Amino acid sequence: MKYGFSEKVKHLKSSAVRDILKVINQGNIISFAGGLPEESLFPTEAVDKAFHKAITSNNKALQYGETEGVAALRNALAERMEKKGLTRNAEDILITSGSQQAIDLFSRVMFNKGDIILAENPTYLAALQVFESYEANVVAVESDDDGMVISDLEEKIIKLKPKCIYVVPTYSNPTGKVWSLERRLKLLELANKHHVVIFEDDPYGELQFDQAAAPPSIASLDENDIVLYTSTFSKTVVPAMRIGWIVGPHQIIRIMAQAKQATDLHTNSISQHALVHLLNDFDIDAHIQTIRETYLERMLVMKELLDTVELEGLEYIEPKGGMFFWVTLPESINTTTLLDVAVKEGVAFVPGAPFYVSDPEQNTLRLNFTNSSPNLIREGMEKLVKVLESANEYI
Amino acid sequence: MKYGFSEKVKHLKSSAVRDILKVINQGNIISFAGGLPEESLFPTEAVDKAFHKAITSNNKALQYGETEGVAALRNALAERMEKKGLTRNAEDILITSGSQQAIDLFSRVMFNKGDIILAENPTYLAALQVFESYEANVVAVESDDDGMVISDLEEKIIKLKPKCIYVVPTYSNPTGKVWSLERRLKLLELANKHHVVIFEDDPYGELQFDQAAAPPSIASLDENDIVLYTSTFSKTVVPAMRIGWIVGPHQIIRIMAQAKQATDLHTNSISQHALVHLLNDFDIDAHIQTIRETYLERMLVMKELLDTVELEGLEYIEPKGGMFFWVTLPESINTTTLLDVAVKEGVAFVPGAPFYVSDPEQNTLRLNFTNSSPNLIREGMEKLVKVLESANEYI
Repeated sequence: MKYGFSEKVKHLKSSAVRDILKVINQGNIISFAGGLPEESLFPTEAVDKAFHKAITSNNKALQYGETEGVAALRNALAERMEKKGLTRNAEDILITSGSQQAIDLFSRVMFNKGDIILAENPTYLAALQVFESYEANVVAVESDDDGMVISDLEEKIIKLKPKCIYVVPTYSNPTGKVWSLERRLKLLELANKHHVVIFEDDPYGELQFDQAAAPPSIASLDENDIVLYTSTFSKTVVPAMRIGWIVGPHQIIRIMAQAKQATDLHTNSISQHALVHLLNDFDIDAHIQTIRETYLERMLVMKELLDTVELEGLEYIEPKGGMFFWVTLPESINTTTLLDVAVKEGVAFVPGAPFYVSDPEQNTLRLNFTNSSPNLIREGMEKLVKVLESANEYI
Repeated sequence: MKYGFSEKVKHLKSSAVRDILKVINQGNIISFAGGLPEESLFPTEAVDKAFHKAITSNNKALQYGETEGVAALRNALAERMEKKGLTRNAEDILITSGSQQAIDLFSRVMFNKGDIILAENPTYLAALQVFESYEANVVAVESDDDGMVISDLEEKIIKLKPKCIYVVPTYSNPTGKVWSLERRLKLLELANKHHVVIFEDDPYGELQFDQAAAPPSIASLDENDIVLYTSTFSKTVVPAMRIGWIVGPHQIIRIMAQAKQATDLHTNSISQHALVHLLNDFDIDAHIQTIRETYLERMLVMKELLDTVELEGLEYIEPKGGMFFWVTLPESINTTTLLDVAVKEGVAFVPGAPFYVSDPEQNTLRLNFTNSSPNLIREGMEKLVKVLESANEYI
């Protein structure tokens, strides 16, 4: 039988990166391609205890729950965020099935076909997928090392009247960049002046290498109820729980909760109750500090080997946190072609092109340093260095 | 600030029933209003063991997982369904965050604005909410005790060219009805003839009181890849896990998986792995048999008291499974008005009107018998009997 699908299906793309990962995962390849946290750091014992407590304390916790999320978890999150300068009531928080769902629910209640979203270029691929599935038009704003270029942002706000500005300002995926405080404030100023909502996607904010240098979230600087902020426990506890949250203007959060009710009633509440116990009984901040130190060590090993590459025109951004190196090669080199060579040598990365809103730079690539041991990073990077040094042969 | 929402928001309604439940849950009221399973029957010890095993066996289980679902769970589901006559490959199964998400993802990939969906009247309220949020038009088909009236169904298929027929054919919510085998076959015949997809929503199929009399699912009778079938562990294990699944034509399942990837990457995989262990280590069929016996006993207590009501014109359907009585009062009585009286007396039900696609019968109500002990049912029903017998005073 021939099935008739909705128009929306045309705008639904499978992730290019996921397709690449499928191929890579089949072979015996050292992969810097994915965006996975280190499994050996998972706080398994604490998670086990927390789930045991959640399951055995009260059968009510196993019943249907509230769409907005478990109240105790929303309270705990409000407290945690307050310590980082983001003051919001628990009622302004919606618990989501990972922060991916926060992006999806926000898009569902905000965007009509043809609405404009301004974004960095490159930016988080799976957000682009969601925006496109709602037939919104994402427009790239020029960026430099400190964030969006304010003159270009203002020009595009005035000309295009966007409904939203989407940013990943802290240790972004894919570039690892962090916005300066000045740019954060300028973005807020422009958003307020022109009444544009800011969506701040912050999955990596806790993974800073130098805690003293961590910038405040844009949401914590918001005085006019204009910023939505989403984050997740996927990088600080375990991804399998799929627990994220979004906080922001109550009116938007309330309507997103209505959308969530139709979507999946509520997020897995065993995991929500377990998180409440984990936050009470386990020193999550000490755990996050261990994650930071481990990732910093791995980043430095990767950097050490990247610095040995003899290839004129190779540049990279040294990450101040997060999970990724962003590498630019000479313009003549296409990293999608180069990936085939690398895979044959037993090492993998992700080409940068799929992360671009428009005008992809084919000579870019992303390297993950969090999911391989220092030894494996060394081994893989030695292969990759050779591939990069021979890159000019494959033009 | 004034926020601009999407057009879709206009079609997003909060559940009328949920709003009623909020009021009811505040007071000291015996509630037959919700649709909750009995908490004391939750297999807490087995669930606890299963989660412990899932969390401690392998840190890989705590990492990001596949969008389609944990392979071992999909295999286990394929085996379980095969025993009930529904033969499908594991690849044709998508694990969802409750069966509510199956309805939502299906709607997202299938429906354009104005597409027609045929449904029973009344039917599952939260499915109507989803269909309306995608701006599809739901049209009611006449039903009797055996299912949809085939002549009306055929007429509407020919006239309206629907994209889908949505049915809850087994111990439905809200009516508790079960379709005859003959009607199931006739529905399939018409759907095949006119190339209309059937969506079979079956959350209650395992809760039959007389196992010998349980009808086959429509999906198990499908020979032409035309039926999508969804079910859940919310009624047989615990709702808080939010694990459902959908099985059907591979092409549709594959596209739904793409939509799910954008929506929430994948369903909580700790719960998925725990379910695999639960299905291996625990006799879930014996557990389901206990649930059936408990619910049958409660249904009979409620029936005994319903039978004592002295009110000319009161009719009800005796459920053969599931969780609900559907009661029709004399036409002059409005159950929304009557609910206020009942709540003052300390007992609650849900008025039937919100469950209707169109032309609501204001004199109907739904009673849940699964979430109260026999004693509480007796106590609540004694109050309700008085309210019903005085119903004519409130016309």
